[in-house]
Amino acid sequence: MINKQLIFKKRPVGLPSADTWELQSNTIPDLAQGEVLIQQHYISLDPAMRGWMNEGKSYIEPVQIDEVMRAGSVGKVIKTNNHPKFKDGDYVTGWGGVQQYVITNGSNWYKVDPNLASLPQYIGTLGMPGMTAYFGILEVGKIKEGDIVLVSGAAGAVGSIVGQIAKIKGCKVIGIAGGSKKCNYIVDELGFDGAIDYKSENIVEALKRECPKGIDVYFDNVGGEILDAALARLRLHARIVICGAISQYNNKKAVNGPSNYLSLLVNRASMQGMVVLDYAKDYSKAAKEMGGWIAQGKLKSKEDIYDGIENFHETFLRLFSGDKMGKLVLKVIEE
Amino acid sequence: MINKQLIFKKRPVGLPSADTWELQSNTIPDLAQGEVLIQQHYISLDPAMRGWMNEGKSYIEPVQIDEVMRAGSVGKVIKTNNHPKFKDGDYVTGWGGVQQYVITNGSNWYKVDPNLASLPQYIGTLGMPGMTAYFGILEVGKIKEGDIVLVSGAAGAVGSIVGQIAKIKGCKVIGIAGGSKKCNYIVDELGFDGAIDYKSENIVEALKRECPKGIDVYFDNVGGEILDAALARLRLHARIVICGAISQYNNKKAVNGPSNYLSLLVNRASMQGMVVLDYAKDYSKAAKEMGGWIAQGKLKSKEDIYDGIENFHETFLRLFSGDKMGKLVLKVIEE
Repeated sequence: MINKQLIFKKRPVGLPSADTWELQSNTIPDLAQGEVLIQQHYISLDPAMRGWMNEGKSYIEPVQIDEVMRAGSVGKVIKTNNHPKFKDGDYVTGWGGVQQYVITNGSNWYKVDPNLASLPQYIGTLGMPGMTAYFGILEVGKIKEGDIVLVSGAAGAVGSIVGQIAKIKGCKVIGIAGGSKKCNYIVDELGFDGAIDYKSENIVEALKRECPKGIDVYFDNVGGEILDAALARLRLHARIVICGAISQYNNKKAVNGPSNYLSLLVNRASMQGMVVLDYAKDYSKAAKEMGGWIAQGKLKSKEDIYDGIENFHETFLRLFSGDKMGKLVLKVIEE
Repeated sequence: MINKQLIFKKRPVGLPSADTWELQSNTIPDLAQGEVLIQQHYISLDPAMRGWMNEGKSYIEPVQIDEVMRAGSVGKVIKTNNHPKFKDGDYVTGWGGVQQYVITNGSNWYKVDPNLASLPQYIGTLGMPGMTAYFGILEVGKIKEGDIVLVSGAAGAVGSIVGQIAKIKGCKVIGIAGGSKKCNYIVDELGFDGAIDYKSENIVEALKRECPKGIDVYFDNVGGEILDAALARLRLHARIVICGAISQYNNKKAVNGPSNYLSLLVNRASMQGMVVLDYAKDYSKAAKEMGGWIAQGKLKSKEDIYDGIENFHETFLRLFSGDKMGKLVLKVIEE
């Protein structure tokens, strides 16, 4: 049996190019004792993947050259060799990488129930992006009823969940997204109180309009000038959650630091970084609560699903062009 | 009786110049009911004063044009008109401004005991700079035994106290200061574990040498490239206390934001601003504890005292050139 695998070949400088990866077709080896073979249906495409391609220590080891590109995934167990936990037909999620099949001993893989949520939701709202949103806005952002919450990347996999959780908790929520379609979506379908289109609006002016009283919590997925504009409108004791900085990930020069950081001093505010992996022991509790919200119709998710491992590169670039709607997913084998 | 007063005449762009202020000699009016006349002995010169000169809202109202320049001070009550709290001969500290005499109803003025500490100490270690150090490193920095603590402006009024408190609490302390005299002072006299001379050393290399295991707490008085270098060496869950940014106060362009701020994400670290005024209700408790440390010889202070209100401008500039040693004080009337 053949496994199409996307191999990481070259560390990119700036935006990845087609030769960053190489698609290979390799024969699947036999299972060793205690291993399982997983047929992967969906691969999660996330901005964090760009960081994993850089050399040097970060919160996680970089992907090594000639390895399968790292990615979260969801699929089905189709073969086992005396595995203590998984059996044929189990649906599971884990770090399967960008490939059609993966062999594993099952560590860091978890069963999912396809009757409770769709498979793509398990790598979206109930997967890393959802967990990032949940722990980021609740544990780091420490939102409370009545807070004015601003979130960037607001139509994305993380931002859309952040905003909806903040609404559930009684906050006023403003989202920043690119284009009127996304802005309409977060207000009309997700119930945000306001939206700013960073592609057509002056962000400083728009923030004055949407947050005339300032901001209590800013959940930052983008960095750059939007972070700077948010800093300039902090209220006393505001919290900034640094979750990502997608505007800076493909920089060839140094990251643009936030010039307005002294607003932290003036407003006795804080800026704190977070990495979702730290909350692993509480994932199941969070998934249960979020599953409940989904069932009650309080939490909506949208997945933007593209087809075919051959299309990985062009699909991946949609993360940075913004040309996608909701959680970006690549289908590699039909369910 | 004549009062020499330094009047704020012109908002500076960049470093203040001689015409930023005007020295006037004015007659002291009579006291109204409930007022006191204070003869000021010492004026506190602090980097924060530069911020108060800028137009626009900050954590405190800006000084208005044609007002006496705002400053902390310490002096003696020499005349009262039925004041409920103060009597002739009381030594007091408050916001007396850059002038020889001040008339006040006594609100926000506090009695001090010249037998327990010298008058300049009451505007230094036992005044705003000391309070800033105390609450900044303990309440915001949340130091604990064994932490590796880095402090910039380490020979200054705030930094020297920050480092000594961290030593008292069992931390390893590295200070950054300008010039070998200051570096020797913080190590040999104040007991810091190491020093970095930012005027002669490459800060990135020196930090590797002095903090090979990284930094748990960075107390930042200076901003700019030193903040960036510190960010690059954070340990997991590190805390940065943003107390000031003296390297940026006289910028004519935008502040240099910290390019390495994404280290907050990688290290799940936080950067938090503080303003000492928020801790006013606990000043007396802090002063008592610090007074105890001074009495036990655990906390040393050095005041660099210049003479004469006529010399305010050139003395003030020493804050930014670094040409001073310890807490900068201007004597305006002999004790």
